[in-house]
Amino acid sequence: MRNQGVEQIEQSQESPLELISSMFASDMSEVDRLILENMQSDVAVIPKLAQYIISAGGKRIRPLLTLASTSMFNGDMSKSHNLAAAVEFIHTATLLHDDVVDESNERRGQKTANLIFGNQASVLVGDFLFSKSFQMMVKSGSLEILSILSNASAVIAQGEVLQLSATNDINTKMPLYLDIIESKTAALFAASCEVGAVISNQDKATVTAMRNYGAKLGAAFQIIDDALDYAADQKALGKDLGDDFREGKITAPIIFALENATKEEYEFWQRTLGYKDQKDGDFARAMEIITAHNALNKTIELAKTYANDASKSLKIIDNSDVKHLLCGLTSYIITRSF
Amino acid sequence: MRNQGVEQIEQSQESPLELISSMFASDMSEVDRLILENMQSDVAVIPKLAQYIISAGGKRIRPLLTLASTSMFNGDMSKSHNLAAAVEFIHTATLLHDDVVDESNERRGQKTANLIFGNQASVLVGDFLFSKSFQMMVKSGSLEILSILSNASAVIAQGEVLQLSATNDINTKMPLYLDIIESKTAALFAASCEVGAVISNQDKATVTAMRNYGAKLGAAFQIIDDALDYAADQKALGKDLGDDFREGKITAPIIFALENATKEEYEFWQRTLGYKDQKDGDFARAMEIITAHNALNKTIELAKTYANDASKSLKIIDNSDVKHLLCGLTSYIITRSF
Repeated sequence: MRNQGVEQIEQSQESPLELISSMFASDMSEVDRLILENMQSDVAVIPKLAQYIISAGGKRIRPLLTLASTSMFNGDMSKSHNLAAAVEFIHTATLLHDDVVDESNERRGQKTANLIFGNQASVLVGDFLFSKSFQMMVKSGSLEILSILSNASAVIAQGEVLQLSATNDINTKMPLYLDIIESKTAALFAASCEVGAVISNQDKATVTAMRNYGAKLGAAFQIIDDALDYAADQKALGKDLGDDFREGKITAPIIFALENATKEEYEFWQRTLGYKDQKDGDFARAMEIITAHNALNKTIELAKTYANDASKSLKIIDNSDVKHLLCGLTSYIITRSF
Repeated sequence: MRNQGVEQIEQSQESPLELISSMFASDMSEVDRLILENMQSDVAVIPKLAQYIISAGGKRIRPLLTLASTSMFNGDMSKSHNLAAAVEFIHTATLLHDDVVDESNERRGQKTANLIFGNQASVLVGDFLFSKSFQMMVKSGSLEILSILSNASAVIAQGEVLQLSATNDINTKMPLYLDIIESKTAALFAASCEVGAVISNQDKATVTAMRNYGAKLGAAFQIIDDALDYAADQKALGKDLGDDFREGKITAPIIFALENATKEEYEFWQRTLGYKDQKDGDFARAMEIITAHNALNKTIELAKTYANDASKSLKIIDNSDVKHLLCGLTSYIITRSF
């Protein structure tokens, strides 16, 4: 399918993400093989827990970005498979630690690993996957790749700590929120795209363009994720609706709702998110306030500006089917319910 | 002091570890500077927490091994400083996650970071330090170094998971115990020594000798650490005496005590360690049984065989003051109460 023309893509009923998945289906099965191979260990709980979280689904969007980016520049796909697997390992390690930190019970409609295997195993298997990702990157033989992905990892961890500090602080403003999502989410999207260009020996401008595309796409993705917490059909999303609310995370919908908050509303947010003093009916009331302030639409508009920027970043790249799909992905991500 | 002769070393009242510390005092202050520099972040809790755990003391034995190994082969000390700091970051990240996993309250006579900053921050700052260590290694410009240290990190994580699986299982036998300590502790000691030889461009036999030295020294160090949990003057050790007992960790003293256990003793260990059903007086009874089985002396003998092996590993290395001190360290580590 990788050689189908733009017209065929246009006629398809499938989403850009599904089309990219189909286009790189055989590459992804090689990535899956590498993931399986690298999570093996004589210590039984490691492959068991790793298998559990990795097979829990997810759209594998980050490794797909690495594959698409490499393929767009006619890079070495076998190198790309290895990096795509490494990127997925970093992401998975982050998920494991996130769920411990957030004390989450459900992810993508399944019980979280920490709930089944315990926090201790989740922390340590996260460390294992993280170490393994570096072992895999070393195989790439490129210090530049290692530099990009170790920088991304450090930025992700900083973003997670920053998010932790801002949790329950209803005075968190938009710049801090954007800083958090750019670190915790956009950094790995950016690196996933960037490494594809780097292993394909592209020039600096192209590498930067791919990096920017990933960063903006990742930010849009996270903003929509934060919107879905107050809007999603829980079954489609496979996560607990209102998780962020219960944890007191200050995300875009809340920040918009707080902009012109009445005294009563401010006190409501202070009690429920600031002091985490929540009772029955509070989440419904939160949804009401968010709707009254048009905060969800404002959040989606914010995501759109990032998605547009992502699309614009690709301007300097030669046209191709893959580029067309990557552009399509930016608007698709806004409408997603996954 | 780095140029003093062997005779002066012999006459000294200081321990080999103190002598190595003095010998590399100026190098260590450069390592400290790099540690401080690399734990900076705009996210305030990161340097705060990192500072807390790093300044909590510890003998910095791993970075000292990297410095000593490099210096012994007349390697580039500025490269060594960077790697020594990276090694300490890996170790510190491991400590942070360990304390979360073990739910520890005290380390080196101070409250643990998780007690003060919370488990969440400890997990995430551990991730940050771990990522930073890889950024620092990338600066070394050597894929071989990155390979050695990423392998070590993966082995450490495996060892920690293995330890978790064996906790509370009083049927844990010596080979499994040795596997655990070789992974969770000896692997980083081995890598710390190995990288010093690698950046000094030593041949394969020399690199292997240094790796073996570190591995055996690290195992001896951990075995003594496990003995001290049942023997140490708590104030000198700065850790809670009986921590391992309370957590149900099956370490060498327990395995030796279980070898010829009476039915009553076996049931005692099953209750206290297996089921973690402990009451006042149990730790005193544990000490009694351990003494009756000569289990502490057997543990120290076990450590001695590793220490001897460590010393023997250095045979092929040319004599020098540093080598003399590294040899001395192997016997000193057995008598330590730190």
